[in-house]
Amino acid sequence: MNYQDSAWDPSATLSTSFTLDDLSKASQKFQPTTSETYQTSILKVIGDAHDKGYKRVCMPLTTEKWKKRWSEMCLLPTERSDQDKESAAQAAETWRLNPAFERDEVTITRIDEAENIIVMISDWLELDAADDWVRHDAEIALKQELAYASYLNVHTAILPAPRNRDHVASYARIVNSCLNKSPYIYLSIRLPIYNPSSVFHPGSPISSFHPSSSSAISSPNPGAMPTPALVISESEQVPSTSGGSLNATWEMWDVIRSMCDYNSRLTLTLDLSPALPTTLGVLSKWAAESVRHIFLPSSTFIANMKGYPVLPKPTQQFIRDSMIHRPTIILAEVTEGHHSRGGEAAYSQYVRYLEKTSPAVEASKRTGTVENFAQGYQDYLQAPLQPLMDNLPSVTYQTFEQDPVKYMQYEEAMYRAFLDHPEGEKIVVCVAGAGRGPLIARCFKALERANREATIIAVEKNPNAFVTLQQRQATEWDNKVQLLFGDMRVIQVPEQADILVSELLGSFGDNELSPECLDGAMRFLKSTGISIPSSYTAHLAPLSSSKLYNEARSSKNDKSLETPYVVMFQAVNILSGTKATVDGRCGPQVQECWEFEHPRRDALLNRSGLPFTNSHNARSAKLCFYIPHAGILHGLAGYFEAVLYGNIGLSIHPQRKEQVSKDMLSWFPLFFPFKEPLYLPSNSELHVSIWRLTNDRQVWYEWHAESFILLPASLRAGEELLLGSPGLSPAPSFSLMGAPSPLIDSKEPDISRTATTEVTRMDGELEAVKIGHTSLHNPGGRSSWIGL
Amino acid sequence: MNYQDSAWDPSATLSTSFTLDDLSKASQKFQPTTSETYQTSILKVIGDAHDKGYKRVCMPLTTEKWKKRWSEMCLLPTERSDQDKESAAQAAETWRLNPAFERDEVTITRIDEAENIIVMISDWLELDAADDWVRHDAEIALKQELAYASYLNVHTAILPAPRNRDHVASYARIVNSCLNKSPYIYLSIRLPIYNPSSVFHPGSPISSFHPSSSSAISSPNPGAMPTPALVISESEQVPSTSGGSLNATWEMWDVIRSMCDYNSRLTLTLDLSPALPTTLGVLSKWAAESVRHIFLPSSTFIANMKGYPVLPKPTQQFIRDSMIHRPTIILAEVTEGHHSRGGEAAYSQYVRYLEKTSPAVEASKRTGTVENFAQGYQDYLQAPLQPLMDNLPSVTYQTFEQDPVKYMQYEEAMYRAFLDHPEGEKIVVCVAGAGRGPLIARCFKALERANREATIIAVEKNPNAFVTLQQRQATEWDNKVQLLFGDMRVIQVPEQADILVSELLGSFGDNELSPECLDGAMRFLKSTGISIPSSYTAHLAPLSSSKLYNEARSSKNDKSLETPYVVMFQAVNILSGTKATVDGRCGPQVQECWEFEHPRRDALLNRSGLPFTNSHNARSAKLCFYIPHAGILHGLAGYFEAVLYGNIGLSIHPQRKEQVSKDMLSWFPLFFPFKEPLYLPSNSELHVSIWRLTNDRQVWYEWHAESFILLPASLRAGEELLLGSPGLSPAPSFSLMGAPSPLIDSKEPDISRTATTEVTRMDGELEAVKIGHTSLHNPGGRSSWIGL
Repeated sequence: MNYQDSAWDPSATLSTSFTLDDLSKASQKFQPTTSETYQTSILKVIGDAHDKGYKRVCMPLTTEKWKKRWSEMCLLPTERSDQDKESAAQAAETWRLNPAFERDEVTITRIDEAENIIVMISDWLELDAADDWVRHDAEIALKQELAYASYLNVHTAILPAPRNRDHVASYARIVNSCLNKSPYIYLSIRLPIYNPSSVFHPGSPISSFHPSSSSAISSPNPGAMPTPALVISESEQVPSTSGGSLNATWEMWDVIRSMCDYNSRLTLTLDLSPALPTTLGVLSKWAAESVRHIFLPSSTFIANMKGYPVLPKPTQQFIRDSMIHRPTIILAEVTEGHHSRGGEAAYSQYVRYLEKTSPAVEASKRTGTVENFAQGYQDYLQAPLQPLMDNLPSVTYQTFEQDPVKYMQYEEAMYRAFLDHPEGEKIVVCVAGAGRGPLIARCFKALERANREATIIAVEKNPNAFVTLQQRQATEWDNKVQLLFGDMRVIQVPEQADILVSELLGSFGDNELSPECLDGAMRFLKSTGISIPSSYTAHLAPLSSSKLYNEARSSKNDKSLETPYVVMFQAVNILSGTKATVDGRCGPQVQECWEFEHPRRDALLNRSGLPFTNSHNARSAKLCFYIPHAGILHGLAGYFEAVLYGNIGLSIHPQRKEQVSKDMLSWFPLFFPFKEPLYLPSNSELHVSIWRLTNDRQVWYEWHAESFILLPASLRAGEELLLGSPGLSPAPSFSLMGAPSPLIDSKEPDISRTATTEVTRMDGELEAVKIGHTSLHNPGGRSSWIGL
Repeated sequence: MNYQDSAWDPSATLSTSFTLDDLSKASQKFQPTTSETYQTSILKVIGDAHDKGYKRVCMPLTTEKWKKRWSEMCLLPTERSDQDKESAAQAAETWRLNPAFERDEVTITRIDEAENIIVMISDWLELDAADDWVRHDAEIALKQELAYASYLNVHTAILPAPRNRDHVASYARIVNSCLNKSPYIYLSIRLPIYNPSSVFHPGSPISSFHPSSSSAISSPNPGAMPTPALVISESEQVPSTSGGSLNATWEMWDVIRSMCDYNSRLTLTLDLSPALPTTLGVLSKWAAESVRHIFLPSSTFIANMKGYPVLPKPTQQFIRDSMIHRPTIILAEVTEGHHSRGGEAAYSQYVRYLEKTSPAVEASKRTGTVENFAQGYQDYLQAPLQPLMDNLPSVTYQTFEQDPVKYMQYEEAMYRAFLDHPEGEKIVVCVAGAGRGPLIARCFKALERANREATIIAVEKNPNAFVTLQQRQATEWDNKVQLLFGDMRVIQVPEQADILVSELLGSFGDNELSPECLDGAMRFLKSTGISIPSSYTAHLAPLSSSKLYNEARSSKNDKSLETPYVVMFQAVNILSGTKATVDGRCGPQVQECWEFEHPRRDALLNRSGLPFTNSHNARSAKLCFYIPHAGILHGLAGYFEAVLYGNIGLSIHPQRKEQVSKDMLSWFPLFFPFKEPLYLPSNSELHVSIWRLTNDRQVWYEWHAESFILLPASLRAGEELLLGSPGLSPAPSFSLMGAPSPLIDSKEPDISRTATTEVTRMDGELEAVKIGHTSLHNPGGRSSWIGL
């Protein structure tokens, strides 16, 4: 098992990581005269890493000297004279005016040293420090480092992890400013996969030494010298907002990514050092994010029975699942000998083993699977077909005719329907929308298998495909098919059919106007006749995907976020919980919107056998999803299921497709985007409204969502108590409270908080409280409609 | 007290309201032959109403006949034969194809009858029915009524109130569709000010009789005949989401207004029938909405001691406060004799009395108030001045010099500063940015009052204003002032000053670059010298205003929602609670961001006496606001306070301006808009970050907000419990739950909801859970900056 001699086309890129210590040792050993290949010690260590099979090398950009100079200039010194302080302040101001490195403050100096290097920005820079001036000077230093890295043509810089939830907005603002200032470099936020407090050791808070200070927040411990763990601010020890929860680090990432407006040069370096939780739900959210690098130190590995390094089960599974996203895996501390067997190579070999055993990667390599068939189409947005308005080209028919499963299901459905007809009795079959004839061919096979005779009538409105039908009629079908050219909604047939077969379904079932077309074709059917398919349903689930959101809005068309797309999902996460809730408020993960049945019962028809209006094909649904883990709603995933005949069906429902029509290739799901990403907290509810609307000329969908959170009813009781009887209570006077003004003699403010005082008498009754909503999408079909 | 003979320029428009009964009686009494003025009974009742002083008349558009026909076609009949049902279905389909009225189904038929009429759409139309097909046919009927009203040139139609929170999204979608379909008519949503369940009497739910029905939701009571109170759906009796709370009706309005994308033709008819709550907080939110009409039936009035109709105190106060928005007040049931004294006229006279005693209206009529001074500027967005970059025209100086309070404060500050100087000692005063000289004039007055002598130096960089200064020097000041032309950041002065006086403040304090300018002018000051102002602070509060949101985005410039504006607020509501919270998490209603002091202590300067960089003028603030009542965040209100000298100051802080500098006219607040309105639930927290940023050439602000809700910590405990030790627990298998598929033999789903099971063991500890955020606004100053 060696990554080098394998024919395997790898998904992941491997990188190793060097510390300052590694670089310093390499420099000491380096003998410029003896080496002809490498001119510098940095080039040598990079070359050695490449020889070991690492495609990338990750290393710090700056040295301890830089940290020392910056700290002396910008942090509050412990025991220095006023004169020293003054000269430090002078140095800092001079530096702020012209931020620049000294030679020995950086690890690399040549453009060839920087090739394929991922640089680590100084990890002691506290961009989210509680102290305003520490943040201020950390921002200048960060920009200096990024400017230097950009000068050396470095493509990716990993930023120190955010650690202070209270000031993550400042961190995010700085990152956004850097993205705009450095137009080429990729910035990757290093982030532990969860719960940072178990990763970082608390240290003393630090404070700046800044000459101006009328509003500088003074530190509670102003004399503290910066320690190596200076990156921890006090707020971590007392988490104030959502701290310590499983979502805490993702929540910080979400603030950063959102405030950087989903910049495509902003990525994640997910740090797998902490032990992973065993709940899939918490981890699956990372699938919807731009995880570019996975940081994996050797200390995360455990030893197997033989002493070789292996990963804990949840970490294994997470890495296997991540492989599909082609990450760069940064192996760190691999030379430290944490494990008794296998040496340095064991770590990368193990990662390659996980890659090969990744079900997603395996599926993409195995022919016959959707994953393999759809290579290159992952997360690629396509406009849904409109076969009724547009005549499809032959190549489109050809693509879809390649689906063995779909036509096998149709053949099986026809076969069973034929069997249910009395032997010897002649059957009339009408194929409505015959295309290039795949259903006709299957119809002949099914008749042969069932030992039945039938008249086959085929209707097709695409004049070009009709030529193909005539060709097959002459060469394959021995002129046994009655070919009729025309639209099934207006054409007349010579004979009424027992079975009407059609393949008019879209990814959402009715979205290619199957209901309207079959309304027109019902005239062809005897009163006892049946339709294949006999019914179909549309299904929805709430979806998170930074990728799809960015793809949908990258179109110049400003309506691109109000139109559904056909997409092969990859970097997505379904936000709804897998199970319906006990209280019955919320349904399952994927929920049914509506159904169409053919033939329609009780249909009211005019003299031509057609409906008066299309009113009866309007639909609407109100769905309620349970959201177990916080996430960002970017859109809705749309699926369909169809009953062809009996228990033969077609399904792209993610939880049922394997059982109904495994490996069917013809349909990717539909993606209904939302213009504004909607934040959904853990344990919330999402109410989705969707409408299928119609007028004389068009059909379209509109969609909308509202989010709710369940609160104990008593939490809101305070509000109700203020209700008085009309006319009895005097109107309360407007209270003039607030921070004391320097201009007004301040009274002690009479502070109170109605709700808080009510909290203690909480009971178990929960009430859904609204917390957000999206706009109404595609109103009036203005952005997308389907032509009748 | 009569509205007709008053010289008072009214704010409110009065309307009366007729019922079908009124119209029918009028029709019976009407003798076409005897009347020469009016040709129809409708014209007669309208004419009579105008004679009584009503400018508008409100009446239903349709008659009972229309209700009967629609109900027979579209609702499920009780005891009818199949044949009857079939013919009803036929009639319905024919109607759906061509919706049209019969003559006797409408109240008005002539364009002159429709003039100045506000029509009430059929109030039995249930646009938010639980039954899909009732909604569907109600939509067709609504569009038919609006098309007819538009044909008659009716300008405003009042829609029936939404009543079903579960389907309000459908109601909103229909209204939006109507707004787009009828491009001129104003639609007004009738809505009780709160708590609809006390207003409407529960009735039986209704169900449609619709031929197609595979997905029609069947009613729990399908046989019920529509009753007069058929507008109530079952969900009202069991409120499922936020029902029954004080915010319920506003919440429905919010869904409708948001889904209609803040369409400016969508307004509110606030129904004051229910008794008003005594809490101002709940009512103040309506100030930020587009309340066009107030519906006030005589039954809302109570009788005073003498038997005349008066309103309960909270209703009085609400109407007084609403007057500033110039509503149309629809007085209903005024002829029914609910009160023993005063007759019909008493109601409108009472409303006019409330108008005259409205403090807001009074203030706008009294000279010397900001409200009066700012007539026409209410809610009008202006770009903030940039006096450093642009040389102001004389008329701008003139406008601001009209402010008596501001210059009185400056004179008083100088006077007190002079008094604090030893008598007989010569004082040097430098006016930095003298403009057309108002501060110089005040300086002379203050010197005279204080009996002091001074050298006055005046610096001005506007060459045009400098001409005015020379003119005044010659004519008024007897050449006693040393006039210096130039920028205070570079110019040299002949003598250092004891007192530096400047008026460089903007609405947000530092937003016209006072800090940067005074940094440059500090060279003019002796080491013992002082600055007037000596300090100033910037303040923020979260704001809701549909009007300002619509104004800000109506600009064609796509950056118009990322730039601050100067605005005289009117249709706004400050969302934050008036008091700081007991737990200390949230501060008061309006919070201080930062401060600037002059002269700076410990300033580090170069040889020219100027700072090396502008770093020290960067600022940032993180504020936490308590939100007692649900509302939509549209932006931030910005204010300033300044200390001129001692306890003499300037303030536009809404709670302190009256005490510090009452009736000061020079500054309207600043409005920092948000691009996406953010929904804030009751009892939530809003965390606002704002930064004052600077580079060599510019200063700008960036801003951002996150919202949180307080949840009992135990509500989230379920999530934490799932954390296992790494490597020990097997990864859970993906559960395939959901609604049973017709294609798979379904098992009983193993439903559970982690959180719900935890709820019972709730404790009092609250945790802030994030629920939403805005984007980062104006990043890098790309949309607006202030030139240095």
